[in-house]
Amino acid sequence: MAEYTPPVDDYAFLYGEAFGFDLVARATDGELSADDATEIIAGAGEFAASVLAPLESVGDRIGAQLTDGQVHLPDGFAQAYQAFVEAGWIAAEAPASAGGEGLPGAVRAGLGEIWNASNAAFALCWLLTAGQIHALDAAASDEIRETYLTKLVSGQWTGTMNLTEPDAGTDLGAIRTIAAPRGDGTWAIKGQKIFITWGDHDVAENIVHLVLARTPGAPEGAKGLSLFVAPKFLVNDDGTLGDRNAITTVAIEHKLGIHGSPTCVLSYEDATGYLVGEVGGGLAGMFVMMNSARTGMGFQATGIADRAYQQAAGYAAERLQGAVLDRPAGTSIAEHPDVRRLLLSMASRIFAMRALDVYVGDLFDGDDTALAEFFVPILKGWTTEDAVLITSDAIQVHGGMGFIEETGAAQHYRDARIMPIYEGTTAIQSNDLIGRKVIRNGGTTVQQLLGLIDETITRLRESEHPVAQRTAGRLERAAEASRRATQAVLGFADKPRDAAAVSVPYLMLLGTLAGGWMHGLAVVAVLAHESEQERDAARLTLADFYGAHHLPRVHMLAETVAGGEVR
Amino acid sequence: MAEYTPPVDDYAFLYGEAFGFDLVARATDGELSADDATEIIAGAGEFAASVLAPLESVGDRIGAQLTDGQVHLPDGFAQAYQAFVEAGWIAAEAPASAGGEGLPGAVRAGLGEIWNASNAAFALCWLLTAGQIHALDAAASDEIRETYLTKLVSGQWTGTMNLTEPDAGTDLGAIRTIAAPRGDGTWAIKGQKIFITWGDHDVAENIVHLVLARTPGAPEGAKGLSLFVAPKFLVNDDGTLGDRNAITTVAIEHKLGIHGSPTCVLSYEDATGYLVGEVGGGLAGMFVMMNSARTGMGFQATGIADRAYQQAAGYAAERLQGAVLDRPAGTSIAEHPDVRRLLLSMASRIFAMRALDVYVGDLFDGDDTALAEFFVPILKGWTTEDAVLITSDAIQVHGGMGFIEETGAAQHYRDARIMPIYEGTTAIQSNDLIGRKVIRNGGTTVQQLLGLIDETITRLRESEHPVAQRTAGRLERAAEASRRATQAVLGFADKPRDAAAVSVPYLMLLGTLAGGWMHGLAVVAVLAHESEQERDAARLTLADFYGAHHLPRVHMLAETVAGGEVR
Repeated sequence: MAEYTPPVDDYAFLYGEAFGFDLVARATDGELSADDATEIIAGAGEFAASVLAPLESVGDRIGAQLTDGQVHLPDGFAQAYQAFVEAGWIAAEAPASAGGEGLPGAVRAGLGEIWNASNAAFALCWLLTAGQIHALDAAASDEIRETYLTKLVSGQWTGTMNLTEPDAGTDLGAIRTIAAPRGDGTWAIKGQKIFITWGDHDVAENIVHLVLARTPGAPEGAKGLSLFVAPKFLVNDDGTLGDRNAITTVAIEHKLGIHGSPTCVLSYEDATGYLVGEVGGGLAGMFVMMNSARTGMGFQATGIADRAYQQAAGYAAERLQGAVLDRPAGTSIAEHPDVRRLLLSMASRIFAMRALDVYVGDLFDGDDTALAEFFVPILKGWTTEDAVLITSDAIQVHGGMGFIEETGAAQHYRDARIMPIYEGTTAIQSNDLIGRKVIRNGGTTVQQLLGLIDETITRLRESEHPVAQRTAGRLERAAEASRRATQAVLGFADKPRDAAAVSVPYLMLLGTLAGGWMHGLAVVAVLAHESEQERDAARLTLADFYGAHHLPRVHMLAETVAGGEVR
Repeated sequence: MAEYTPPVDDYAFLYGEAFGFDLVARATDGELSADDATEIIAGAGEFAASVLAPLESVGDRIGAQLTDGQVHLPDGFAQAYQAFVEAGWIAAEAPASAGGEGLPGAVRAGLGEIWNASNAAFALCWLLTAGQIHALDAAASDEIRETYLTKLVSGQWTGTMNLTEPDAGTDLGAIRTIAAPRGDGTWAIKGQKIFITWGDHDVAENIVHLVLARTPGAPEGAKGLSLFVAPKFLVNDDGTLGDRNAITTVAIEHKLGIHGSPTCVLSYEDATGYLVGEVGGGLAGMFVMMNSARTGMGFQATGIADRAYQQAAGYAAERLQGAVLDRPAGTSIAEHPDVRRLLLSMASRIFAMRALDVYVGDLFDGDDTALAEFFVPILKGWTTEDAVLITSDAIQVHGGMGFIEETGAAQHYRDARIMPIYEGTTAIQSNDLIGRKVIRNGGTTVQQLLGLIDETITRLRESEHPVAQRTAGRLERAAEASRRATQAVLGFADKPRDAAAVSVPYLMLLGTLAGGWMHGLAVVAVLAHESEQERDAARLTLADFYGAHHLPRVHMLAETVAGGEVR
């Protein structure tokens, strides 16, 4: 496995200038600056490269193991988790209201990418703990905050999300796990939950499960669900750990990838749980965690894609094979035109994803909730689908060596494949997008996005630089195609099957367009420099490449969307 | 692993009517008919489903193992190979001149798909043996034909292709293995070969290696290469097996997929070899085998993709999850609009690939060598790249279960990933296409293809059926975009780096276009039916879907190609 180099320069650029102002200063009312945030990112990057990245390969090779009802992680994981907690990286994710650092969303996006790039399997433990912190901070009683939230924020305990059952995956309304009141304020939870990420492990002393269950007599479907916390070890009144709760790890899954992340089947046998929020308010409470996990997938997608890219770029720079056209002998394969194409293809998409992660992370700190939530399915759907393709490109750069497991490229390809599935498949995202966020408001938010893109096009037109001119022209045509596609989608308002049949292509269209917009913003920022800076030329090349190779996908998808369901 | 159902109906349609006449009768001057060929396909399908398919999963789980210098396949492989040979399936591949059945290329395409669909790892043994049969039939002396070719055709021995070395993969001119004449007609071969598929095994009594090596004093580069056969066991004058040749299996690779296919590192320690053809004619001799292997990749791509599709379609038809829009309770997920989209997306590409396999297989039996060879890189590049995407779609249909290895969907995804790499990466194919087959003849062959497509458009216009009308319109616009892209490519004639930088997009454009053409031909054939036949509606739906969802990719790629190398 190649070493990991955190993309500190990109974050400095994104925080400080890509959006035309200091994003971090604006989000924190000047408490933190882009420079401060970049320092945080650099520190995280150093930690990730030295502590987390070296464990990625053993996590894959040995993976999580279930022995005598207890999940064990490979040597080094528990120590890495302790170091992670001690360095304050869990608290860095938590809001100030929960006793955390309250860092702005844009900075948490950067941290999220770095944990995932260095060790995606490990990062899932962080992601779920972080998600649960946000969910409990939004809905839990003081008692639960005191007993559980504080331990999650300190990193002593980790969190999980217990939704899925064998017959309730995409359809949460079919959940059958029962929580019955015992009369003493506690609930007895009975049922089986599957696909529970980090559902058991030995890297922290306790695990807090956030469980969706049905109360006796509750209505059918999603309205009958309530939310509970259920710890692996019960907690005594003085906060010390008591008996083991009646939650058994029945099995762990044998998966295509992320072997270092235990995926558990948990059996609840009248386990003790505590209600979070109101009876029947389970889905609303869980949505806080799901939204957090979905934007988190954008960070994971960017991270895994960048790690795969770094490995491919490193290999290409070293590998000599064949004479390279118009280049001197001894030139590495990185200069073969098609290898260069693959590397630029990866890098240009990764920058677009990273920029969108930061943009959306920042939106959640602002007032425009509709725009922020509009981007959640786009970010989750588009980045994860494209990340899978990027990890495939990384294998291709390696040639035959890419297919050999020891090379390490295949791990990213295997790890990445779950991303378009978990935390809601791409179709779930696209139905959310097209139904709730486009058709329901008559396309208002899409128009708002297209208006923002128009502003960027106007700025690009002010420059005579050929990349600015080309980027403006391409964005203009892509925006026009997107308007046509949106009209088509709105025309399907009363034909829900037609709308659903083109919802994934439409999501991918908006993601691809948003990526082009991010590059447009970068071009504007680069050309505002009074003298050329180190990475300026590279940023312009990436923008130009994205415009020539990726943005045209909008035209393809617009044609598909307009076609509607095949008759 | 799901069961395998051979696509007999599709082959009956392709052989008998899709191209407007009985393709098999034409190729065999009436010796065989489409019905005869369909019977052969059905027989192969039955054999594959009952003997080869059940071993696919154990081949993956246990895989090939190297113990004490000998590679062992899991239980059942040797018996399956014997049954395969006894049923005559090796001889079915061999030309009549080599003592085989001399089946037409279109039929061998169908057989190739079936072996690969049922067990891709096993099929590689067949593919390489078949390729070597063609190479030896074209170039070997009578003595080598007598000693080796007959044993390959009878299936007693298997064949391999020994090209790659650690520093000579894509660049065969860098090969350093030496073959020195011993003065007795034999040669002493010394060197190391890597990535040798089925380089050692225990399913047949002997293995014939076809080896590229450099003779003493030979010129640098590819011109200095000669071709040799070197058997695992030396052959006595009476044809019985003698001592083991000095070829050691140093290691087998730990790969992402096709675990049932041993990928060997072979060390030649003054091993005995026999010259095939002339000294210095090695690359030309090996090209026969490589061309055979490259069209064979089209069959493998179609086969793996179809198996993945069958598994996904089977799962979707059984799985209940969530209420399906506008469908009664109890409707399976196959009717969820996005699952339907994924399944149609897969099936429509698979039909296009399968039809192109048959078309190109048939071209090689005709006189238009230029057109046949034009399609080799397109078939290899486009089908293998798209097959990888299809196996990914198959995982997506399964949701979370797709990521669990026991489900079987992940194996296809892992197996498929090698296809765009081996037998020449997609970039190698696209450089061959753009340089030798487009720019060198000024685009003549592309014009010929576009002319053929125009004829199909004219036929489609003769029908008033809406699918025919839509297909004609879409094909016309795609052909127009392809003309523009071809003009752009021809304009890069004196800028080879620009040409190479867009060669893969251009190859994918032509593959996608050719796929659309195949569907256009199918629409014409279906609409010629006097009364509606069983699969007519499904064929029209696939054509319509391909036109709406895949063919528009031509427009995207045309824009990219016209952009040339990013500046």
